[in-house]
Amino acid sequence: MVADTPARTPGTRSRRSRRGRLPGRQDWSTWPHYQAADAGFRGYWYPVAFSSRITGRPTAVTLLGERVMLMRDGGAVHALKDRCPHRGVPLSYGAQQFPGTVSCVYHGWTFDLRSGDLVAAITDGPASPICGKVTQPTFETAERLGMVWIFVGDGEDAPPIDEQLPEELVSNPAVVGVRIQRRVGNWRFAVENGYDEGHAKYLHRTSLWRLFKAMPVYNDTRIVRRGRWIYRVQDEQYWEADFPGLGRWSGQAWYKLKPPKKNAGHRNIGNTGGSQKVNATIEAQDFPGFASVSMPGVLRITYPHFIHYEFYVPVDADHHLYVGVMAEFRRGLRTLPFYAKYLGAVRWLFHGQFSGQDKWMVEVTDAPPERLYRPDESLLQWRRLAEDVTKARAARLRDEGLDLGDVEA
Amino acid sequence: MVADTPARTPGTRSRRSRRGRLPGRQDWSTWPHYQAADAGFRGYWYPVAFSSRITGRPTAVTLLGERVMLMRDGGAVHALKDRCPHRGVPLSYGAQQFPGTVSCVYHGWTFDLRSGDLVAAITDGPASPICGKVTQPTFETAERLGMVWIFVGDGEDAPPIDEQLPEELVSNPAVVGVRIQRRVGNWRFAVENGYDEGHAKYLHRTSLWRLFKAMPVYNDTRIVRRGRWIYRVQDEQYWEADFPGLGRWSGQAWYKLKPPKKNAGHRNIGNTGGSQKVNATIEAQDFPGFASVSMPGVLRITYPHFIHYEFYVPVDADHHLYVGVMAEFRRGLRTLPFYAKYLGAVRWLFHGQFSGQDKWMVEVTDAPPERLYRPDESLLQWRRLAEDVTKARAARLRDEGLDLGDVEA
Amino acid sequence: MVADTPARTPGTRSRRSRRGRLPGRQDWSTWPHYQAADAGFRGYWYPVAFSSRITGRPTAVTLLGERVMLMRDGGAVHALKDRCPHRGVPLSYGAQQFPGTVSCVYHGWTFDLRSGDLVAAITDGPASPICGKVTQPTFETAERLGMVWIFVGDGEDAPPIDEQLPEELVSNPAVVGVRIQRRVGNWRFAVENGYDEGHAKYLHRTSLWRLFKAMPVYNDTRIVRRGRWIYRVQDEQYWEADFPGLGRWSGQAWYKLKPPKKNAGHRNIGNTGGSQKVNATIEAQDFPGFASVSMPGVLRITYPHFIHYEFYVPVDADHHLYVGVMAEFRRGLRTLPFYAKYLGAVRWLFHGQFSGQDKWMVEVTDAPPERLYRPDESLLQWRRLAEDVTKARAARLRDEGLDLGDVEA
Repeated sequence: MVADTPARTPGTRSRRSRRGRLPGRQDWSTWPHYQAADAGFRGYWYPVAFSSRITGRPTAVTLLGERVMLMRDGGAVHALKDRCPHRGVPLSYGAQQFPGTVSCVYHGWTFDLRSGDLVAAITDGPASPICGKVTQPTFETAERLGMVWIFVGDGEDAPPIDEQLPEELVSNPAVVGVRIQRRVGNWRFAVENGYDEGHAKYLHRTSLWRLFKAMPVYNDTRIVRRGRWIYRVQDEQYWEADFPGLGRWSGQAWYKLKPPKKNAGHRNIGNTGGSQKVNATIEAQDFPGFASVSMPGVLRITYPHFIHYEFYVPVDADHHLYVGVMAEFRRGLRTLPFYAKYLGAVRWLFHGQFSGQDKWMVEVTDAPPERLYRPDESLLQWRRLAEDVTKARAARLRDEGLDLGDVEA
Repeated sequence: MVADTPARTPGTRSRRSRRGRLPGRQDWSTWPHYQAADAGFRGYWYPVAFSSRITGRPTAVTLLGERVMLMRDGGAVHALKDRCPHRGVPLSYGAQQFPGTVSCVYHGWTFDLRSGDLVAAITDGPASPICGKVTQPTFETAERLGMVWIFVGDGEDAPPIDEQLPEELVSNPAVVGVRIQRRVGNWRFAVENGYDEGHAKYLHRTSLWRLFKAMPVYNDTRIVRRGRWIYRVQDEQYWEADFPGLGRWSGQAWYKLKPPKKNAGHRNIGNTGGSQKVNATIEAQDFPGFASVSMPGVLRITYPHFIHYEFYVPVDADHHLYVGVMAEFRRGLRTLPFYAKYLGAVRWLFHGQFSGQDKWMVEVTDAPPERLYRPDESLLQWRRLAEDVTKARAARLRDEGLDLGDVEA
Repeated sequence: MVADTPARTPGTRSRRSRRGRLPGRQDWSTWPHYQAADAGFRGYWYPVAFSSRITGRPTAVTLLGERVMLMRDGGAVHALKDRCPHRGVPLSYGAQQFPGTVSCVYHGWTFDLRSGDLVAAITDGPASPICGKVTQPTFETAERLGMVWIFVGDGEDAPPIDEQLPEELVSNPAVVGVRIQRRVGNWRFAVENGYDEGHAKYLHRTSLWRLFKAMPVYNDTRIVRRGRWIYRVQDEQYWEADFPGLGRWSGQAWYKLKPPKKNAGHRNIGNTGGSQKVNATIEAQDFPGFASVSMPGVLRITYPHFIHYEFYVPVDADHHLYVGVMAEFRRGLRTLPFYAKYLGAVRWLFHGQFSGQDKWMVEVTDAPPERLYRPDESLLQWRRLAEDVTKARAARLRDEGLDLGDVEA
């Protein structure tokens, strides 16, 4: 740069530097189990891949910091720890040499896919003395919503996956659109961002998904716990506000739809215009609030004609899978308009650009330390839920005499 | 490779391996404050960006290991810690929603740019109870030489920036050419390289900037402290030398100008041919030596017709900003030839290739351990200056009752 | 993904998850010297570069975690520690200013290439008081097989390199084809993979090098120690096997050559068809087994018409040099067919794709923990050899009163 500068730039007023006042939470020790769960909570089913991607050729996924080999055999999906105990080479580099088994690429150690038993070490011949002495850890698997799910526990029996899936998805036929994306950032930031009451109205106000819809400036919110879900109930929504000394702020515009009238028969569903249709289709299920969350990190947003779910799957402390599911509870020919809607709009606007704003925030969130504010009641209730449920599970496992591993820090 | 090798290569004499003899300094504990200042010294003004780059859209810089958000409002530049205290998201991703403020992109927390006070949390409405309870740390700023400067201290009042700038730049009109470049390597290696008496004659002998100028082989050098500067005075310069058992070494060549005659009225300015013209223009200031340095890492080289400055700005322990400033003390029409000289030569040869050799060395220097030699007296004096000044500041701040933070290790 | 899924996927049977049974070795404390030798064993000659690459312009290599500068002067190769003691800048960035020396690029510190003595500090003139007070560590060098070798020790006299080279390479003229490749992975995994009895028959069965040759399914193997080598003797080879409950496995195929008849005069050479021709050429040397290994990680595979060597050179804990050498013991015109064979086939099929499978495995091996099986007797014997030899050397050096440095952990 070249500049003709006077000896002193006029008009630059110095101000006293200030160290600021930043009270707030320095750690998460209020919720010790939650604080310890960097790499996720054990004891749950997690979706990890599209069913169509799991074939007779081994595939690897990472879940809760652990590499898992997935392979389809006889129609069913099998999951083994992805580390050959011989020399540590990933089993997922191997291939199937005999039915019902997988063989390590290096020396042909061959494991039964169901039991994990070492049934042959090819390069040591049929009488190899090592057979019967080694068993590879296995994982229970299931297939739901077009995806493979894995149960990661501490040695306990896996509960039926249907006890963990959102209830309405178990008992009603549905058509779904699914997006799976590996993302940077801790899974807890993803859950907290998903359930966060505050950010949607500000961060997402610029998204195309919300372009023609008025957005409230702020809400009166209550958190209601029912069963294993906690619901965010918006009692009141404010579409405009005057900030004293600053100016006016509005979520409306001439090109946006008018906001819904207050309490027009859908007050519990927030700004979405009523849940009746969803309810009618899925057997009069009652959703007391627009957004709800349950363990181990499942978000449910009830729109008038469909429900949107987000499953945040811990990959490791720094990565998670975003699994977005849009479900309409229809069957037969009535599912046809769904495809047009999902592929023509929802996938790009909602699972794409809108959710991409969340992806960005989850990447850059850096807490604790943190200084929460009133709308963060939703975060606090979620953390409390996670802490309570995990404490109860730990007690149950101890009663069963199981080694808790890293559950109790 | 394919080769027809005899069973034994003749003529390869083995020699006894030796472990060497490498006495020297293993650490910098002689200068404890200097040793602790990996990420820079607090209590100084630092240039961080061209003024023209700081606009109404927030920008982030890193200084002494800390991210700082910069933004222009009402003509003045404001600097805040670049981390929203709510959830740790950079404020520099935000934007201005109300005059005199910046709002975080995530939830619309809105800070006053002057005071750092949280004046609104948009998504919690005008009555949000958090307002008035949070103040973001701020930094004092100034604009000089076409750049924005930030004061980084420990809570003390910032001294006027003019007390820290080289004196002649405060009281005289000047035309300047400036280069700012982010570089790899600790800022102390950059200062030490800049003020180092020894390397210029050897490392830079191949630079185009020196192509037609004779370079001394070695010098007799004294270090003189005056005010806040220490000066390198070359009492004698040697243009040729015979190294016994090795051969002759010369800094002259047929295509180079003859070296200046000894003591021809400019002995204190080294090999530059006299400082009179500089002095005449800038009010008879006295520069007892060619090169001088002051805290917190400012190098000044007085050439006959201009002065070259280098400010080494600590970014973090492994990076620094190189800020090169060429200044001529002229005004009005007499500045025109400066532009031709700077843009036509100095920028490419001096701020470019010549300084690029220094950049390379600063990247690969790896000390301590180190084994200093006679010309390193300049380094030792610089470290002593840094240590003395920092010790005095620490005592002063303690007297004022200020928390020293990381000043005292 | 979009899918019409029923509420429940039928046919997905849940199975009980199992934690597995993975007994095995958790560390290598059985061989403490071997366990400590992450970055290689000291006290050996290592090949580091092609002779043709080492010229009068300095070059850097890394060996056992240490940077070494190599430079040719007067025909011989010289090696110095690649860190100028002054300020830590690599000497290999420097150049030769006076015969028999190298000068650091930064300040012209000039070292004698033979002794490592600092003979001049150019920028401090001929009378610089530092000369004679600093000696840079040096390494002994040799040239063999078209490569430069460096001795890395602990201050002891280097043994003649010919005492370490495979004996037949010292006393017989040979024509060689050499490949040097820097690879990822610890050097011990490379040695263990090279000498490993088990993997060749399974991992390499798909290599082009083995395409037309039958491969045994498994062998009966003994390890025989003779001199500084241990040999793998295959007493019996099995070309087919029935794995109960799984099926049949064969290393034969219609397009492969028939396997050799048992004990047809070449039983000690394994599946290679006799060592007589090799022996005849190289003075009736006796190789009791097909594969042999010696310290510090030299593999020798005796084929009927040539011998293949692999030298695994520790670069640092995570990298090694693969140096593959194919040698035929011929001279004069009889070497001509060798070039056709090496350049036309061996280089691409054996030193290339076949060895590339090993490269892959060495990269992904992750042990301990490990669970060894019967064919790993070869690994166990190699580790025992390394441990015994290193223990003996440590005792010898202690007797000589030498500081062992990191030999004894």
